[in-house]
Amino acid sequence: MTTTSIQPKQEIVLTGDRTTGKLHLGHYVGSLKSRVQLQQQYETYIMLADVQALTTHFHNPGLLSQSVRQVALDYLSVGIDPECATIFVQSMVPEIAELTIFYSMFVTVSSLRHNPTVKHEAQERGYEDLYYGFLGYPVSQAADITFCKASLVPAGEDQIPHIEQTRKIVRRFNELYAPVLVEPQILVGERLDGLDGDSKMSKSLGNAICLDASTEDVQTQIRRAKTDPGRIHKTDPGHPEVCTIYGYHCIFRKEGSAEIRENCMKGTIGCAACKAMITEAIEDVLEPIRERRELYKYRPKDIDDMLMAGTAKARKVARQTMKEVREAMGMNYFPLTSEQ
Amino acid sequence: MTTTSIQPKQEIVLTGDRTTGKLHLGHYVGSLKSRVQLQQQYETYIMLADVQALTTHFHNPGLLSQSVRQVALDYLSVGIDPECATIFVQSMVPEIAELTIFYSMFVTVSSLRHNPTVKHEAQERGYEDLYYGFLGYPVSQAADITFCKASLVPAGEDQIPHIEQTRKIVRRFNELYAPVLVEPQILVGERLDGLDGDSKMSKSLGNAICLDASTEDVQTQIRRAKTDPGRIHKTDPGHPEVCTIYGYHCIFRKEGSAEIRENCMKGTIGCAACKAMITEAIEDVLEPIRERRELYKYRPKDIDDMLMAGTAKARKVARQTMKEVREAMGMNYFPLTSEQ
Repeated sequence: MTTTSIQPKQEIVLTGDRTTGKLHLGHYVGSLKSRVQLQQQYETYIMLADVQALTTHFHNPGLLSQSVRQVALDYLSVGIDPECATIFVQSMVPEIAELTIFYSMFVTVSSLRHNPTVKHEAQERGYEDLYYGFLGYPVSQAADITFCKASLVPAGEDQIPHIEQTRKIVRRFNELYAPVLVEPQILVGERLDGLDGDSKMSKSLGNAICLDASTEDVQTQIRRAKTDPGRIHKTDPGHPEVCTIYGYHCIFRKEGSAEIRENCMKGTIGCAACKAMITEAIEDVLEPIRERRELYKYRPKDIDDMLMAGTAKARKVARQTMKEVREAMGMNYFPLTSEQ
Repeated sequence: MTTTSIQPKQEIVLTGDRTTGKLHLGHYVGSLKSRVQLQQQYETYIMLADVQALTTHFHNPGLLSQSVRQVALDYLSVGIDPECATIFVQSMVPEIAELTIFYSMFVTVSSLRHNPTVKHEAQERGYEDLYYGFLGYPVSQAADITFCKASLVPAGEDQIPHIEQTRKIVRRFNELYAPVLVEPQILVGERLDGLDGDSKMSKSLGNAICLDASTEDVQTQIRRAKTDPGRIHKTDPGHPEVCTIYGYHCIFRKEGSAEIRENCMKGTIGCAACKAMITEAIEDVLEPIRERRELYKYRPKDIDDMLMAGTAKARKVARQTMKEVREAMGMNYFPLTSEQ
């Protein structure tokens, strides 16, 4: 992750997560870790993306309500500080819906169809006949990012096409109407493979270590994680480049990873010992998260209050942007009744 | 037009017009005329569809601002009574955008692509690469109709596929979540051909008589209107079925149309005389419209006040529906900040 190009105090950061379940280590490595740093320096908005969750979970809305609070608790547990960062609920900022509708006027269907991440996800989920809202979720993301004029979006590399789409929308809007919107940059986070080694860590694929996993869970999950399938005996020379656990060393034990690599290739360290080391490193990450979780776990009312306050703040910013957008489009006929 | 199936005092009526220019006789015949009757009996909402106008005019937003007031003046001129009907601006009811986003989750792209009216319009406008918002405007229409739980939509026959789409969305929503939404019926209005006889009267095709046309405009336009091309001399037997003016007789001079037909076929009435009669009939329609226009024409402030009051009323209804929708979907996590 590189932050060298950031101009201090000028950036507004926007990130978020779909509220389709608890967060896991993949989220932590890919984005949460950097948010905790960024919130100290920049104005930070963190979105509980329940509307985006509907694009794949519209038939299971009960999940959203539960998950909104779960993810909020995950945020507090990793160290997001609501005094620094504005945590808000996407569906409660109607301006995001309004911006989505406006932007959708000048985004072509084919540009969405050719978005590689949309294509990949549709394939992964076995969608033959796309839903209109699913196809258009990059337009909705552009609204998420632009309502608060975010200039920096910490996200995984699969989000690169979406940020590019947002940048195109911003340029087109500013050119069509007036230079109101801000073109964001992506801050690409590290990618964490799933325990099965087959793809990115993902809750829906069942290959994830959740942030609320117990020590026993972590031990069991790491013990079962896929390693180099060609290595039968401890003394066989291993191939770290195909081993999930070696990938974890590169992320969670960066300083020791070269040594692990060498020992694995020479057959001087066994998988069990290697896994024990990574279990410990992951435990070092999860332990403070667990401790913070204990502080908030039994205070659901405080979490709701925090979300209400964050959402109110996000709405205030959203209203201002919407006002500028309406002015730029010549659609500010008279004062809005909601603001009376 | 048939109103026999209407149950008095139970219906809520929703109609509207895209704000892309002044209204014309085609709008009058197709929908405005019936609105003036319906407003006395039913709760009536009339929408200035400026967001839908963006689907084809996003590069010309200046037009919208002008047109919103023009169409509002047309409404008052035809006899829409703001004491009876709620006239409001679509873009100022954010709940419509929110409902559009929710519905878009369970409408397939292919059902929109196969909508015959969307297909026809795309072809007519020469769109090779559809815009996402244009493709989805039937979803937006479903939001327009359902936010106020309209049960009756007076509209042209080209709207039949859209109302069918709305009915499907309503059934799907009610089945997925809870029976909150109302399935609307369409009340199909008469269709008026354009002066060129080639297609429906439409401002963008330049074949329309506007509601603010002067007597001289009407005379000139009718004089130039296409009739039976095979009829050269007054005494030639005519073919009323291919004559635009005969079509107008059937609508504006229904009682005398059989006689016109007979005389035309026998060659005992010439086109000039026939056109003079229809000019007079159209003048009978337009004259009271002109008189009412004079009353409001120089009171733009009153029109703005009326739109603000109508929009405030529409928002109140929209907020209530949105509340029920959120409850049904389990997305009513805490009170909305906008309502505080």
